[in-house]
Amino acid sequence: MKLYNVAYSGNSYKVRLLLAQLGIPCTIVEVDILKGESRTPAFLKINPNGRTPVLEDNGFVLAESNAILAYLARGSRFLPEDRHRWALVFQWMFFEQYSHEPYIATSRFLLQHRPDSPERAAALAVRREGGWAALRVMEGHLTENDFFVGNCTIADIALFAYTHVSHEGGFPLDDFPKIRAWLERVKTQPGFMPMG
Amino acid sequence: MKLYNVAYSGNSYKVRLLLAQLGIPCTIVEVDILKGESRTPAFLKINPNGRTPVLEDNGFVLAESNAILAYLARGSRFLPEDRHRWALVFQWMFFEQYSHEPYIATSRFLLQHRPDSPERAAALAVRREGGWAALRVMEGHLTENDFFVGNCTIADIALFAYTHVSHEGGFPLDDFPKIRAWLERVKTQPGFMPMG
Repeated sequence: MKLYNVAYSGNSYKVRLLLAQLGIPCTIVEVDILKGESRTPAFLKINPNGRTPVLEDNGFVLAESNAILAYLARGSRFLPEDRHRWALVFQWMFFEQYSHEPYIATSRFLLQHRPDSPERAAALAVRREGGWAALRVMEGHLTENDFFVGNCTIADIALFAYTHVSHEGGFPLDDFPKIRAWLERVKTQPGFMPMG
Repeated sequence: MKLYNVAYSGNSYKVRLLLAQLGIPCTIVEVDILKGESRTPAFLKINPNGRTPVLEDNGFVLAESNAILAYLARGSRFLPEDRHRWALVFQWMFFEQYSHEPYIATSRFLLQHRPDSPERAAALAVRREGGWAALRVMEGHLTENDFFVGNCTIADIALFAYTHVSHEGGFPLDDFPKIRAWLERVKTQPGFMPMG
């Protein structure tokens, strides 16, 4: 198995974390997106959408971090068979990609990789409310639940990736004690591996 | 089964379309998001993220349009069992929510529901390139494929919803003959139902 990976990207880390928890060995191919390596003709043949991560498994090529999680988790405890729980895992993964990542991960990327400028400040400003809103939804859910769906699943792995570094995007978790406790629970799962 | 629905929303239409193709009867509950009906305390009890559509199935509540598609399609021809095809269906549904909907659907919403203003023009401008990029990825894939994954699946239904009205978001399909031909193929599927 081969993973086209960006070391500091939460989307790539999700996949590395699940592979570690499943004990699946994988060759890591580092892609320098800041040098345009995800938009070269060679990379666009692998993923025409020009995004990382991408998994290659014996010639089978799969993009989209949460689809990769689902592919790897199918049949394991990380994707429950029960029809309702199974669907809720996908609900939270779509929540992550639509309502969380575009605000929190993008803010972190801007802060880490773009120089301070009025344009960056404006781009960060439009992402503030969406990021806090996503964290409030998570805090509310974790007030009554230890994990997002039953035990630790790929929904937790997907949401952990950028939430545990949300302060690097300007979203410190001081007012989110339930999220902080959940992050610790995820970190004590068997096979857990830190981001970098 | 009960669907909290927004009549003109592609995300809601996806679910109605799949329900029609599966022949599943469903009670439609219209939510007027422009009047804030998706942010009332009563609605936030149903979906704390304050978004539509939401499906209620015998007390089970599920949000996120593409998670609802997966829930309804599981075990049917709309979500193939084969491990690779199954994963690719999710790949394209995550592509839809991350790389397509935020540009094309949001532009359409702004054009239909917000008055012309410099702010609207600016919001539309930042969505232009992402929308065209998504359509180019689709056109490329459909050059070699009749559907996104094998036969018509929920990946096609998810992508059809906003692509067939992309001109209403300022993305006419004149230069995308393969997408136009694919739209016609989706429209001739058994049980097809138009948006409104």
